[in-house]
Amino acid sequence: MSESRNELPTGPAARREALDARYGGTIPAGDGPWNETLAVLLRHRSVRAYDPTPLPAGTLEMLVAAAQSAATSSNMQAWSVVAVTDPSDRAVLAEVASGQRHIEECPLFLVFVADLSRHARIAEAEGAVLEGLPFTETFLVAAMDAAFAAQNAVVAAESLGLSTVYIGALRNDVERVAALLQLPPGSAAVFGLCVGTEAARSNAGVKPRLPQAAVLHRGHYAPAADMAALPGYDAALERFSGAQERRAYTWTQRVLTRLGTLRSLAGRDGLRAALERLGLPLR
Amino acid sequence: MSESRNELPTGPAARREALDARYGGTIPAGDGPWNETLAVLLRHRSVRAYDPTPLPAGTLEMLVAAAQSAATSSNMQAWSVVAVTDPSDRAVLAEVASGQRHIEECPLFLVFVADLSRHARIAEAEGAVLEGLPFTETFLVAAMDAAFAAQNAVVAAESLGLSTVYIGALRNDVERVAALLQLPPGSAAVFGLCVGTEAARSNAGVKPRLPQAAVLHRGHYAPAADMAALPGYDAALERFSGAQERRAYTWTQRVLTRLGTLRSLAGRDGLRAALERLGLPLR
Repeated sequence: MSESRNELPTGPAARREALDARYGGTIPAGDGPWNETLAVLLRHRSVRAYDPTPLPAGTLEMLVAAAQSAATSSNMQAWSVVAVTDPSDRAVLAEVASGQRHIEECPLFLVFVADLSRHARIAEAEGAVLEGLPFTETFLVAAMDAAFAAQNAVVAAESLGLSTVYIGALRNDVERVAALLQLPPGSAAVFGLCVGTEAARSNAGVKPRLPQAAVLHRGHYAPAADMAALPGYDAALERFSGAQERRAYTWTQRVLTRLGTLRSLAGRDGLRAALERLGLPLR
Repeated sequence: MSESRNELPTGPAARREALDARYGGTIPAGDGPWNETLAVLLRHRSVRAYDPTPLPAGTLEMLVAAAQSAATSSNMQAWSVVAVTDPSDRAVLAEVASGQRHIEECPLFLVFVADLSRHARIAEAEGAVLEGLPFTETFLVAAMDAAFAAQNAVVAAESLGLSTVYIGALRNDVERVAALLQLPPGSAAVFGLCVGTEAARSNAGVKPRLPQAAVLHRGHYAPAADMAALPGYDAALERFSGAQERRAYTWTQRVLTRLGTLRSLAGRDGLRAALERLGLPLR
């Protein structure tokens, strides 16, 4: 169950506990800074079961203010967000996402949109041409703008004792999502986000991540570091998944399953062509 | 100048002030939640002048722990980060980024890497093939994973009274950055991040964003909302840029300048071809 903001543990013991949970006991906690916001960040868990209780008034607006406060490339603000309210729309989105029912259950479901349509509307109104629009770079800016913004919304929600989970599986069929939400040409959904209070039946835990030595490089990239860290992390994730999920798996197994076959892309091998049809060619 | 964590203003007046700054006075503050983490999020400013003072011990490790705590698609953790320490490397990166000298000046400069090379190394060690790697979808996952992670690092840094600025201009020449940092095939820098204490000479302010009505859609996307909000936002940004930057500009002018010509992409119209040469084909 989620804790309210005032119950957040503080102090060195809480810091050590948070780091142990995040790294599955593979990291010495050492010395370093700690505060309430760091506690919010470290304790993130992806939650897939929600109470239907509506969020307090003003919550959505504050999440969006937090999202808009994130940096955005050249202040282009190349993203939008749709709060999907209609239950039948939610049902379609859950179907696109291979039946994830928390999309229907959560009190707030947001779809984040990489959005270059606004700039196109402005150019049209001004009688101008935007030569820079139809490029991989510009779509990437829009997708990363959406990601920066959404992550701020996640941190804001979790600071308020709410829980979240990203829904990348909306990309299984970006054209169906675009038609449903009436997205204009030049825009596409890049992911969804469930927000709400964690249901009592939820058992979501803090998932261990790769040791820092595998991810953080000093000076230059050192490819040997992650292979050395792999056996320990495989064991940590196997313990976690065995306790938390339907069956235990190592990270190595997960990587080979998730990226091994075209089938596991669940239709997303057609993403580039679909984006082009939505007015987002990746030159 | 940055404030330490304990000097953060709280209470309804602080909430109203934060919303007024973020929206340039275009939004009624209304009622809604507020806490210290929301205050950290709302007061974000991109800072381009730093004290050279080294960061306190343990800061880098805590920023990376915050970054790794962000959600990552299917737990693929498809990103890495390089802390660039060598002054001559910093000078090269500043040159790639069209001479942004804060890259050389800040005590901590991080390069965030969309990284599918780790999965390729695992597959090679296991004698497996990853059919899912060479797709737009998979690169997009890696780039957005890097963005979620980096945004958590930004929030962590700002919660500690430090300042930050993203450096998207590393994408002006991703191949030069990859060679410099010895990035393996299957990985590419997607942006940099300066972290440090704001210099006394800095005058960075909270930049106003588009009104919420332009960005937040309820139920379905409504293209008319942003065009209606545009004149007010043009005026707000013109006031802000006139006070804070070398010359005043409206948002409409900024959009037409930034996206109007191929030249303004500063070489990034070649990004897709460069990614392919780095082992990241966007099928």
